Amino acid sequence: MAKKKNEAIRVDFNNVTAAAVGKKDGISPAEIKAFEKRAAACHKKCVAERKSGEIGFYDLPYQKALVNDIKGTVRELKDRFENFVVLGIGGSALGNIALQAALNHPFYNLLDRKERRGYPRIFVMDNVDPAYFAGLLDVIDPKKTLFNLISKSGGTAEPMSQYMVVREILRRKLGKKAPGHIIATTDREKGLLREIVGREGFESFVIPDNVGGRFSVMTPVGLLSAAMGGIDIEELLAGAAAMDKRCSRPDLKKNPAYLNAVVHYIADTKKGKVMSVMMPYSNALYLVADWYRQLWAESLGKKCDVRGKVVHAGQTPVKALGATDQHSQMQLYTEGPNDKIFTLVAVRKFPREVKIPKTYKKYDALEYLGGKTMNMLIEAERIGSTLALTAARRPNLTVTLPEITPHAVGQMLQMYEIQTAFAGKLYGINPFDQPGVEAGKIAAFTLMGRKGYAKKRRGVLSRIKKNARYIL
Amino acid sequence: MAKKKNEAIRVDFNNVTAAAVGKKDGISPAEIKAFEKRAAACHKKCVAERKSGEIGFYDLPYQKALVNDIKGTVRELKDRFENFVVLGIGGSALGNIALQAALNHPFYNLLDRKERRGYPRIFVMDNVDPAYFAGLLDVIDPKKTLFNLISKSGGTAEPMSQYMVVREILRRKLGKKAPGHIIATTDREKGLLREIVGREGFESFVIPDNVGGRFSVMTPVGLLSAAMGGIDIEELLAGAAAMDKRCSRPDLKKNPAYLNAVVHYIADTKKGKVMSVMMPYSNALYLVADWYRQLWAESLGKKCDVRGKVVHAGQTPVKALGATDQHSQMQLYTEGPNDKIFTLVAVRKFPREVKIPKTYKKYDALEYLGGKTMNMLIEAERIGSTLALTAARRPNLTVTLPEITPHAVGQMLQMYEIQTAFAGKLYGINPFDQPGVEAGKIAAFTLMGRKGYAKKRRGVLSRIKKNARYIL
Repeated sequence: MAKKKNEAIRVDFNNVTAAAVGKKDGISPAEIKAFEKRAAACHKKCVAERKSGEIGFYDLPYQKALVNDIKGTVRELKDRFENFVVLGIGGSALGNIALQAALNHPFYNLLDRKERRGYPRIFVMDNVDPAYFAGLLDVIDPKKTLFNLISKSGGTAEPMSQYMVVREILRRKLGKKAPGHIIATTDREKGLLREIVGREGFESFVIPDNVGGRFSVMTPVGLLSAAMGGIDIEELLAGAAAMDKRCSRPDLKKNPAYLNAVVHYIADTKKGKVMSVMMPYSNALYLVADWYRQLWAESLGKKCDVRGKVVHAGQTPVKALGATDQHSQMQLYTEGPNDKIFTLVAVRKFPREVKIPKTYKKYDALEYLGGKTMNMLIEAERIGSTLALTAARRPNLTVTLPEITPHAVGQMLQMYEIQTAFAGKLYGINPFDQPGVEAGKIAAFTLMGRKGYAKKRRGVLSRIKKNARYIL
Repeated sequence: MAKKKNEAIRVDFNNVTAAAVGKKDGISPAEIKAFEKRAAACHKKCVAERKSGEIGFYDLPYQKALVNDIKGTVRELKDRFENFVVLGIGGSALGNIALQAALNHPFYNLLDRKERRGYPRIFVMDNVDPAYFAGLLDVIDPKKTLFNLISKSGGTAEPMSQYMVVREILRRKLGKKAPGHIIATTDREKGLLREIVGREGFESFVIPDNVGGRFSVMTPVGLLSAAMGGIDIEELLAGAAAMDKRCSRPDLKKNPAYLNAVVHYIADTKKGKVMSVMMPYSNALYLVADWYRQLWAESLGKKCDVRGKVVHAGQTPVKALGATDQHSQMQLYTEGPNDKIFTLVAVRKFPREVKIPKTYKKYDALEYLGGKTMNMLIEAERIGSTLALTAARRPNLTVTLPEITPHAVGQMLQMYEIQTAFAGKLYGINPFDQPGVEAGKIAAFTLMGRKGYAKKRRGVLSRIKKNARYIL
């Protein structure tokens, strides 16, 4: 197979400059320049974390052995199963969903087996909504289904409760063959799920110790379901590696991840852009925006900085879809409060072309569409939005993918991970923890009667306010 | 058929009060009371617009003849088609999508015909992404497909270009029978699509003149696809009618739509809550949040007030999904900037129950799940989030649906429409126009070479900034 030329993704910052949208909302060359020293210092910290092995996502693009291992598993198993179901939530689901949506057919699960090139249908069950889960069981035959249970600890309530339901069904229907229908993805040694793997005899993959959930798309967490859906994971990693190289130096004139972090940091902290809207002009990339939403929110949304000072940091990521949301959000985006920075995601060459026939030549409102393509239309709409946002002085940048290939998507994911880690340094917070999710979890444990929590039940219940006056 | 007792949806405002989250972020009874007079005045304006016939959405729940008409059409056509495809965007798509997601099986299009009770598969094509549209054509046989083209004017580029593609395919494959595969939903008399309907001989439905796109879910825009998917549209309208009655008086102690509008208005303009997050704890209702997102954003996001003064009004709606987004957004929501008001949507009784078997009794981290249900788990997680948000002084309210029925969803949609119209009066803006979407459209027309725009092309192109220094 001839090696395709893989082009680099491009980030166009022209419309975040003061020259484009004015000094109040835009960023001047001097403002960027003032960050050069700080960028170099932050870069040093990132490199140190990488080299010490403390933070592992940087090195994920270079895993030849793992790729071979996964490809072997897929070769062995894909023909035996009609369905591949991921049981995971948060970082164990969003990457899987993003890769399938970006790189597979938009109606993949409606294709027949041959159209899917022999690969199974893919489902990612990322919630414990009973109607949703029971609905899945209506449309899959467990005997023809391989489940991939993903949890680093094995203590996450959502995937583990799904697993407990699935295990029972498999045992009932398949007896001793049940364990062959489950692959676990979890910690190498520690944790409850690893213990269960040993006990039940599941096949398993490893989530590296130094990679957190939201940075785990290029571990087996994301790669196994991708490969099981027929996606070329080698190319994905090659794209990520290419981006890693592009971002290896702190020079803001050359490093797109770092410049994007600085631009977003200035926009948030100095220009009042408290939201970061990511708006791909591509249905396939819409769920990459959802992946970004977790990465940016959970990494930077922190009460305290690294020294313990209360800062309540964090910019709120918002996902939108072009051209669709021009008919939903663009009114607010251009006329409402100027409190957002926008990232439009463009695709230079779509995998398909749809020609619009020449009909209705006598109607001006339709004539201009005839003889063009949908490709040209969505591109014109994207440029129209860029111009409208810029004219309204809303800072916006454009990330352009040459094509929607594994290589380009790999570049994009790695860029945003590097950007997020670096932004954590700019904000002075720890981008790799999530202390704020504990409070809700503990309350839920208590309400569910988990051992060690049940005695707090009365305390929790007393906090539920039920003044009837305020219930309409 | 015995009439089911249809319970009212409830809105619990306890956790937006100053008593729950403190004076800085919460709202005191005195602050609400201060709005009583203004609410009465705004109510008068809303009633006047309704009575004069200027604003039509209020009366949509009372359309017996239309319901019969739609039901007749569905009875006649449903068996003849395997697929029903909506071609629409914005208000012509979001209501359709919300109703299907809320009230049909979560994997509806994967069910076989019998499981769908004989109703066709439903697709809503709300974008001109060529990969997405070509993908649809891969999975449907046009000969077995009924298309519903929705555009009030017939000048909207996205659905009309889709239509031009579909028309050509149908004519090629079906010749003279092609028009029988298209139903148009458009203005009664005016506009290009009405003219095309006459010329081509399509069956058609009417979008009332006094109902804007984002308020049109209970016109044929939303009702036809709902009924074609087997949803009980009479019950939907009955629910909407029940809410209309509940909201017929300005008393903030009894009118949930008005109180919710006042609460959001105070939160936005006096407490710095520039975002309104809607987070259903239900996959089915997630896309209702998407519908709300258009309603709230496009209605209230306005540069000028009704007197022409520049105000840049508007609160940004954000959709989230419980419990899923507890593993993605909750960290930011509880620890980041306190700049959001939250609406959690609860379901008292899900349509399905999933029991979690008792396994792994020796592991504390799993034992407590055994013998419970997913229903209990998602409910405990919702309450946990409420408590966590409240403890972090983030104002939050809860909308509870007794069940996910057409009646309850009808109540919810009507409540939010009434709330949005009323909020427009509080903000002093026109919630029924969308002047801000023109700029982008004009630029796109120009780039596509539409007659009367093409000569501006050079001007538009000159505004596209391409300083290579800012492209990485």
